Amino acid sequence: MFLGTSSAVPRPGYRNVSSMLLQFSNGSTTVIDCGEATQHQLMKSSLRMGHIDNILLTHLHGDHCFGLFGLMHTLNSGGRVKPINVYGPTGVEELVRTVLRLTGGWDGFDIRITELEPEQVHKFDLRCHADTLLAHVTACPMVHRTSAFGYVFDELSQARSLDVDAARSRGVPMVDFKKLKEGESVLLENGTTVTADEVTHITRSARKVAVMQDTSDASSAIPFISDCDLLIHEATYERVLRDQAVRYGHSTSEMAAELAQKVHAKNLVLTHFSSRYSDAEKVGVLGKEAEMVLEGTGTQVVLAEDFMSFSGIDFRTIGSVLKPT
Amino acid sequence: MFLGTSSAVPRPGYRNVSSMLLQFSNGSTTVIDCGEATQHQLMKSSLRMGHIDNILLTHLHGDHCFGLFGLMHTLNSGGRVKPINVYGPTGVEELVRTVLRLTGGWDGFDIRITELEPEQVHKFDLRCHADTLLAHVTACPMVHRTSAFGYVFDELSQARSLDVDAARSRGVPMVDFKKLKEGESVLLENGTTVTADEVTHITRSARKVAVMQDTSDASSAIPFISDCDLLIHEATYERVLRDQAVRYGHSTSEMAAELAQKVHAKNLVLTHFSSRYSDAEKVGVLGKEAEMVLEGTGTQVVLAEDFMSFSGIDFRTIGSVLKPT
Repeated sequence: MFLGTSSAVPRPGYRNVSSMLLQFSNGSTTVIDCGEATQHQLMKSSLRMGHIDNILLTHLHGDHCFGLFGLMHTLNSGGRVKPINVYGPTGVEELVRTVLRLTGGWDGFDIRITELEPEQVHKFDLRCHADTLLAHVTACPMVHRTSAFGYVFDELSQARSLDVDAARSRGVPMVDFKKLKEGESVLLENGTTVTADEVTHITRSARKVAVMQDTSDASSAIPFISDCDLLIHEATYERVLRDQAVRYGHSTSEMAAELAQKVHAKNLVLTHFSSRYSDAEKVGVLGKEAEMVLEGTGTQVVLAEDFMSFSGIDFRTIGSVLKPT
Repeated sequence: MFLGTSSAVPRPGYRNVSSMLLQFSNGSTTVIDCGEATQHQLMKSSLRMGHIDNILLTHLHGDHCFGLFGLMHTLNSGGRVKPINVYGPTGVEELVRTVLRLTGGWDGFDIRITELEPEQVHKFDLRCHADTLLAHVTACPMVHRTSAFGYVFDELSQARSLDVDAARSRGVPMVDFKKLKEGESVLLENGTTVTADEVTHITRSARKVAVMQDTSDASSAIPFISDCDLLIHEATYERVLRDQAVRYGHSTSEMAAELAQKVHAKNLVLTHFSSRYSDAEKVGVLGKEAEMVLEGTGTQVVLAEDFMSFSGIDFRTIGSVLKPT
């Protein structure tokens, strides 16, 4: 779900500054970017703040991180005990610790910060508070005016459905059913091994979601995002402003579409629109310019809106949006 | 005008976290506290951000200052050149400079920060960008969980109306009319002195506005706020929670009213309500408890709301509120 789809400056009631959410099947929620008033947007949505386990910052420009401090305090006011993981470029630890120290100190839940050194590819496992593995993440360095990362989320594995009778008849104890559903093999007490393929069938393949913002060049991510299901990419400007976009470390919707074409993305979602695109018609131009690039490729282009959300086992159900009540 | 009247946690669409504005007759605007999404509230109001010359922070808890960084960036995006003055407790300089340095650096307008050392009374002159004197300010240390200040604003002088014919007949050159209207005397070339009292009459007396939040004890301000026109005071809790209020460095509406009674405030405006008072009826209880203390004193009690504003030459026109369109 998108919580903020405007670049730089918020437009109250229309688009807030950058933030989006990725919710896993167990409910655990990852926040990607946290611009000012992200907590306000969360409160307007139907999502529960307590489900947030991870916050990933693409970079430390204010429109992507100034909401972090208030969100921490509000989670703390709500009685949160479990820790939270924060990932971001070098500097995020000093930023968070300094702000919390100078604004009354921090005696709340544990904030576990991981800094990503500039200009390197980082790989890490995203886990929820109960330490359950959620996804494999690849952080790819983006070309921007400051150290910035695009994040690629790889679903753990295919989803498998267990044939319970088959598993039982082979003598697999119930406690090991979970392993099989996660694709692992089980060694029985009698020494025989039951593989996942014997007693499960694949209901869908592992999904790949990529989030690239802010950047004028996301090509470091190309090796990791081929055939990705969902490519979310910034599109600050329209085609005629390509020079200006590159100068400020941003992209046009055409540039985003060129990347989507190169990696055969199934769906391209554009976000982070300049405030000059102040209504649906103006933003529509950005969508049309991307569609021209992708004509005939089968890649679907979607223009993000605040509170737009995607769900379903593949992202072809991308048209379904949820607005807050 | 109030931009945020909730304590600690925002309630989107109802009350944001703390911020209020004081607008002087020349349009220059002073922001008192700047909680997260203060810039969003400003955008929803009819006020022009460019008129802000001063930002005073009562203390550095996040619900009073986390909106400062985003507001600076948005003013900068809007092309601001003139400097801004920021006043707040010791630590505000490190906070602002560290955040701006780590979030992309700052090459915008000059941010002039004045730190107020704890547990002392500070007096300073509030000036607008053109260096025009706006008001005399007294910052009084408040009892709270961190270094906090209440601010008392003293209007420069009585407003005077000039009898132009009388001034001319005494030989006062036009260039000195302003001095007389400001209450000063003028020395003529012939050696005689013309006093303001000779050629002006007082149209109203100098006004005094006091802002006390957050605190469980604002008595350090008593010497400076007697007969004040407008006492704005936090009222986080109701009477039965007085012990809890004091423990957390806050006040009940009754405590605020006791101060108003002691200093013969003409108007008492209550704000900074706990989110437990989630509708007009519940907040109304806080108003009634204050009114009971002030019965028969003539002091008017008002419950602040977001976007409520007061205007007029005295604050008896306090009932008039402006809502954003």
